[in-house]
Amino acid sequence: MNDRGPITILTTGGTIDKDYFDALSAYHITGSAAPALLAAARVTHPFEIVEVARKDSLDLTDEDRNRLRDAVARARGDRVVITHGTDTMAATARHLAPAAGKTIVLAGAWSPARFAESDAPFNLGMAFACCQTAPPGIYIAMNGTVFRGDEAVKDRDRGSFVPIPAHGG
Amino acid sequence: MNDRGPITILTTGGTIDKDYFDALSAYHITGSAAPALLAAARVTHPFEIVEVARKDSLDLTDEDRNRLRDAVARARGDRVVITHGTDTMAATARHLAPAAGKTIVLAGAWSPARFAESDAPFNLGMAFACCQTAPPGIYIAMNGTVFRGDEAVKDRDRGSFVPIPAHGG
Amino acid sequence: MNDRGPITILTTGGTIDKDYFDALSAYHITGSAAPALLAAARVTHPFEIVEVARKDSLDLTDEDRNRLRDAVARARGDRVVITHGTDTMAATARHLAPAAGKTIVLAGAWSPARFAESDAPFNLGMAFACCQTAPPGIYIAMNGTVFRGDEAVKDRDRGSFVPIPAHGG
Amino acid sequence: MNDRGPITILTTGGTIDKDYFDALSAYHITGSAAPALLAAARVTHPFEIVEVARKDSLDLTDEDRNRLRDAVARARGDRVVITHGTDTMAATARHLAPAAGKTIVLAGAWSPARFAESDAPFNLGMAFACCQTAPPGIYIAMNGTVFRGDEAVKDRDRGSFVPIPAHGG
Repeated sequence: MNDRGPITILTTGGTIDKDYFDALSAYHITGSAAPALLAAARVTHPFEIVEVARKDSLDLTDEDRNRLRDAVARARGDRVVITHGTDTMAATARHLAPAAGKTIVLAGAWSPARFAESDAPFNLGMAFACCQTAPPGIYIAMNGTVFRGDEAVKDRDRGSFVPIPAHGG
Repeated sequence: MNDRGPITILTTGGTIDKDYFDALSAYHITGSAAPALLAAARVTHPFEIVEVARKDSLDLTDEDRNRLRDAVARARGDRVVITHGTDTMAATARHLAPAAGKTIVLAGAWSPARFAESDAPFNLGMAFACCQTAPPGIYIAMNGTVFRGDEAVKDRDRGSFVPIPAHGG
Repeated sequence: MNDRGPITILTTGGTIDKDYFDALSAYHITGSAAPALLAAARVTHPFEIVEVARKDSLDLTDEDRNRLRDAVARARGDRVVITHGTDTMAATARHLAPAAGKTIVLAGAWSPARFAESDAPFNLGMAFACCQTAPPGIYIAMNGTVFRGDEAVKDRDRGSFVPIPAHGG
Repeated sequence: MNDRGPITILTTGGTIDKDYFDALSAYHITGSAAPALLAAARVTHPFEIVEVARKDSLDLTDEDRNRLRDAVARARGDRVVITHGTDTMAATARHLAPAAGKTIVLAGAWSPARFAESDAPFNLGMAFACCQTAPPGIYIAMNGTVFRGDEAVKDRDRGSFVPIPAHGG
């Protein structure tokens, strides 16, 4: 299951990449946490990391999302992981056009990867497996669940992604 | 993608569950690391955890593996994660009969989950996603790769699972 | 060396206590990190924790510092640890009047205690030992050094506390 | 308080330095954890690290302890930290002759420094402060307490160092 080229990791920022800088007395999105997470996970599968943005996802613009869509299209292989802030992850999933034959998985974290206790490594692991095993399409991997990209929303109060509530009738 | 009942986690021991006990001046397999890992990952997907063994995988017997096969058959849903030591993970994957309609994923860790730097959360995340997205069958999720259960072996020198070398001819 | 009553820990906030809250997409000073740090350190020495403030140290007022001075005076034993933000730690050390017979140690952290890699546990350990072994007086324990309270300043550029430069002449 | 040369750290092994090696399916004492702990603690105080042994402290011999005593005598400054296994830490403290003018502090850990939750950084911080502030002599810094070297024993059942029980009469 391992002969389709590298997995492409596109990074956009978000909580997963937040570090703390004393000089600012504030959290700040820094370089991607992905390399350290993949090293700790002893990943030997080929991968490449491309930074598309470095933003809180509330600050991502349509232009950023178009650049992300282009980066997906340019990815060398057919498996793409996107690290992304949680606030607009679902919006970005809808913005991405399905790319023929590609399995695209968005993941992020509720706690920065630099925290001793964070969901970042588990979520990145989910994304890594999902892009290898799911049919082409767009997915969100958060809170232990693989969602279709068009079926999940962030429930801020519950601190969890949930399926979009069905409409009554 | 989320309506097929709980994910069943069968635990057998292995490095992932090793703690250190001063009284023994030695590592020792303790209760499963899975609950703490799933809590840190903020998993809201339904799951159940069943302990089948608590052993270094070199000590697992055919009887243990038969009990594991039975536990897979009894699992309520059709998605099963097995945490397992690395030494005989591939042997167990071959011992398990494909269970009709079930997606079974074995995962473990090279470093105990209690270590500050461990591949355990990433690997468990891979297993969680794989069992939700891969077709029925038996898989091994290690080192960033989802392998078919019959195609991977542990390469102790490289510290990695690798595909079984193809036979020449 | 252990018969002089509990060690009193006065908490005021600062980086050491910063958590990250997704709902705010920002850091926030939360309850003291001291109880978790002391539990991880397996501290059996008697101690008591009193919250005096919960602020970035740039926001501490003279009134806050007066309350801190009162809390030092009221401490049951003669050994006091103060957790404090780094920005005005030296100013607070100068504000505190030497309390007859008491050994008072200020400590904080450059990285939040919740980070996987933080100076918080080491610094709290320094403060705990210093208050047990140093003569009465006011001290700052940061960056591996025990400073007298009137001899250290924060050097933001170097990310370290340093002795006050001697005046030339 | 900072003009007496580097702090000398003598390492002897013990739980604090235990790593886990899959190839052995067992723990193993590896190189000292001190450099990583001091880096995380952002220590800028001058120090030097000298490896004297790399053993479980139950395996330390009188010859090892004599070499340790010699290393204390040879230390450039008058402040010495010794990292040591817990089982015979008290015996080593008694074996060391008080070295004129030197403050010597033994510390170790109940959990390996590589664990996510370990007492190692707190204990090393205690030792670092104690050697800077305590009068010349031999000390043990464990479980949040600075003991005189001749007054503490390991209480394995409580998982803590405790004062030697006073003799009745």
